[in-house]
Amino acid sequence: MTDLKQKDLLIKEWLEEIKTYIIEQKNEDLEVSQKTADNDLVTRMDKTIEEKLVGKIRSHFPSDKIVGEEGFGDQVDSLEGTVWFIDPIDGTLNFVKQQENFAVMIAVYTDGIPECGYVYDITQNKLYSSIKGEGVCCNGQQVQHPENLKLNEGMIASSSALMGNEKKPVIREIGRTCMGVRMRGSAGLETVEVLKGNVIAYIASNLKPWDVAPGLLFMSEMGMTASQFDGEEIDLLKDNSIIFATNNAHKEIVNMLDA
Amino acid sequence: MTDLKQKDLLIKEWLEEIKTYIIEQKNEDLEVSQKTADNDLVTRMDKTIEEKLVGKIRSHFPSDKIVGEEGFGDQVDSLEGTVWFIDPIDGTLNFVKQQENFAVMIAVYTDGIPECGYVYDITQNKLYSSIKGEGVCCNGQQVQHPENLKLNEGMIASSSALMGNEKKPVIREIGRTCMGVRMRGSAGLETVEVLKGNVIAYIASNLKPWDVAPGLLFMSEMGMTASQFDGEEIDLLKDNSIIFATNNAHKEIVNMLDA
Repeated sequence: MTDLKQKDLLIKEWLEEIKTYIIEQKNEDLEVSQKTADNDLVTRMDKTIEEKLVGKIRSHFPSDKIVGEEGFGDQVDSLEGTVWFIDPIDGTLNFVKQQENFAVMIAVYTDGIPECGYVYDITQNKLYSSIKGEGVCCNGQQVQHPENLKLNEGMIASSSALMGNEKKPVIREIGRTCMGVRMRGSAGLETVEVLKGNVIAYIASNLKPWDVAPGLLFMSEMGMTASQFDGEEIDLLKDNSIIFATNNAHKEIVNMLDA
Repeated sequence: MTDLKQKDLLIKEWLEEIKTYIIEQKNEDLEVSQKTADNDLVTRMDKTIEEKLVGKIRSHFPSDKIVGEEGFGDQVDSLEGTVWFIDPIDGTLNFVKQQENFAVMIAVYTDGIPECGYVYDITQNKLYSSIKGEGVCCNGQQVQHPENLKLNEGMIASSSALMGNEKKPVIREIGRTCMGVRMRGSAGLETVEVLKGNVIAYIASNLKPWDVAPGLLFMSEMGMTASQFDGEEIDLLKDNSIIFATNNAHKEIVNMLDA
């Protein structure tokens, strides 16, 4: 077994542990505290999960670097070497208010090249995972490549902040050009909607590196396109406004954003 | 057993038959045809399901009237007597493009008073049902009343058409006042999100009677508020722009819409 296959099995083992922990704790008091705004809640669980994952990574891969949402990782200013991206709970607001529609996300990159990525929809019990070159699986089953649909042939996913921004009417124009807009409130789960073909594009602004790191690999494995709004490559050292889309819809969206 | 309990059991039996039929047929060619617009698809299955349901209602309750989306029902211009509202597939676009996130909906009213209502999330295998006076159940389990939260204490659900309408900035203002907007693309499933407490309100324009008939009963059973945008009662003989919400959020939303 290659090192990467072993790493993949190890990460999946960790994710199962995390899932068990979340399900056990979910109904307890979440000790919600306010981070920077009402809609940016952080719970004890985000912190505990990141701490658990960081501990495991440090013990198995002591020389790797870690980029995490809750601050247990490293200050990373270069993608040289091996870098882990961790989002302990993506969609924290859904987690707090709905106890569903959230995901645990991990991605590993070496010298800026993705090795493997994971988006775990805990309450639906669906683990989307990928090893570079082997496509994307859902619970071990290969996900079929969606059709390369044009913008007017499917729906898009976007974020509440972007769709509701009066200064960005172009986003709503894109929404009216396609068949409809869907919003789940979790970057990881919207990404999964794109790779399943449930929507043809996901458009969101100011996403953090851990929000996009697994999706970037998924899009490449599915033969789909990922870029910043201006068509440039996504930069995992900073926040990005991103498009994940079918190749056809991607071109149209970049053109509309540029107009 | 009362007549209403018997009717409830009969409807649930029909819904199980419909579910089996949908699951068997789902992967076949759906023979999508265009109704009035690209995003208003109608499939062979909508029609077949409505025809099946109408047949059953006519044979068991020959003097009742039927309001259905696909035209197998009656021309109904009064709510006198017993009226059935049927939406064979609510969220047809999701059904066609995602093969999930759609619902089968039924509601029965006598002289304008709701008797029973059903929203069946087929792929999640969750049947939300209510008999007047007995609350709302999910797969037979009583759904707990959600907290009476204010607008800034939760998220709202809305529709793509409304959120993306440049002439309705107030809807986006409501979206920014609350914690975030979610959109699933099925009136029935958004209604379910309100009664579960996943969102505190659902706001949508131009809904058909069959889109709102079960929800109107659900809201009343959960002690929540349902109204038109201006606060007036919903009229099941016409299209309505509706708010389903916690009592507190409802007041705030009506005020904002009126400003």
